Amino acid sequence: MLSKNTIKYIRSLAIKKYRSINGKFIAEGPKIVSELALSDYKITELFALQNWVDENFSLIGKAGFAEIITTDQLNSISLLSTPNQVLAIVEIPETKFDLSISETSIVIALDDIRDPGNLGTIIRIADWYGMRHIVCSVKSVDAYNSKTVQASMGSISRVNIYYEDLRELLNKASQQNVVYGAFLKGNSIHEESFAKNGFIVIGNEANGISPEIEKLISKKISIPFGKDTVLHAESLNASIATAIICAEINRQNIYL
Amino acid sequence: MLSKNTIKYIRSLAIKKYRSINGKFIAEGPKIVSELALSDYKITELFALQNWVDENFSLIGKAGFAEIITTDQLNSISLLSTPNQVLAIVEIPETKFDLSISETSIVIALDDIRDPGNLGTIIRIADWYGMRHIVCSVKSVDAYNSKTVQASMGSISRVNIYYEDLRELLNKASQQNVVYGAFLKGNSIHEESFAKNGFIVIGNEANGISPEIEKLISKKISIPFGKDTVLHAESLNASIATAIICAEINRQNIYL
Repeated sequence: MLSKNTIKYIRSLAIKKYRSINGKFIAEGPKIVSELALSDYKITELFALQNWVDENFSLIGKAGFAEIITTDQLNSISLLSTPNQVLAIVEIPETKFDLSISETSIVIALDDIRDPGNLGTIIRIADWYGMRHIVCSVKSVDAYNSKTVQASMGSISRVNIYYEDLRELLNKASQQNVVYGAFLKGNSIHEESFAKNGFIVIGNEANGISPEIEKLISKKISIPFGKDTVLHAESLNASIATAIICAEINRQNIYL
Repeated sequence: MLSKNTIKYIRSLAIKKYRSINGKFIAEGPKIVSELALSDYKITELFALQNWVDENFSLIGKAGFAEIITTDQLNSISLLSTPNQVLAIVEIPETKFDLSISETSIVIALDDIRDPGNLGTIIRIADWYGMRHIVCSVKSVDAYNSKTVQASMGSISRVNIYYEDLRELLNKASQQNVVYGAFLKGNSIHEESFAKNGFIVIGNEANGISPEIEKLISKKISIPFGKDTVLHAESLNASIATAIICAEINRQNIYL
């Protein structure tokens, strides 16, 4: 039985303020819930249809307990337009970025990414390429909102997300690490010989990298548009740019 | 003055059925409308705020006439959550794919892409890379729905979109052209030496390339995941995969 208060509590987690107060977020659907259950994330509550419980007995151990609910009840707590068998309440991990991370690996830094779908997609890209750390500026969209969690397709379970004062962090980091920044004009990513560590900064969807962060960029890189293409799109979407840059870094890692 | 019937007519174009009946679609906002006005697309009606009209006098010639409306009136016809100065009604061009196109250039073929945002993003990517032709299977999402038009950020004005029986088309094409298909397992895109013409097939978001199209693929290609990465995302989003493949083709065009 789901009490009115429980429903109210769960639905409140759609709002960032209440996620912060409670230190919890919502993840939904068999794929995402199972990936979180198999990761270091702590699932504190699990609400599921009987058939999901029957088939995922081993996963439930992780949460300790699953409350079996009806389809109607799932509809009443789900944030999805098409609720999908299971809803988990998960603890938001406390993360603090340590500069030693960027001394041994490539870190994606997001300067005010605002679109939750873009952030989720970037998390999925990072996970594909084995990039385990994403630092977001404090004004970036919250990674634990439902749209981002769902768009990450479970990849949020394998990528560490940090919210930091990006200017302060890159100011310190730029003394030791390369800070690459994606711009419309810069050295072609295919001509750049990427370091094995440092930062890749991706800017805001509408405005790109902000002037105060631009000052801390040590290498401006850009994605070349089509050969012999006179008229072309003015820019690429932020997650698309991230994907193309990460793919090039990975190509160099594998083949060069 | 906007009559009730005019408002009803404009809003009906949010629905594919009425777009087909009228052969028209809606484009909104200064950037997209101006790119369409400067292209071969035919704008048949233009509704705009006074300040947009004052600043875009030269563009209006293309439509012949702009009806000046109030902010409230724009709100009543706009499909956007944040209406943006101008709304154009545009003719859907009649397109028929000719096989000679794929004999001289790379054509992106979409096998049941369903998400309008993905299609808009793919159109923007194609435009960035100077790929001027996208063939969609008939079950793919309609390119002239508002979400796709807006996500393309004006790129729809420079990319030809065709809806064709993909099986029939690729069956004919595969006798002369290379038909690349994006799979989770295939030759690494970085090891493939891409032809300058032919097709790149991208599959449906959930199911990938359908079995009947798979039979017509001459070269299976895949995007390698991160070096030494054991656990990683199961797949990449369809528009992300398209971007990474197009970037690699362009790299080979420029540098190899």
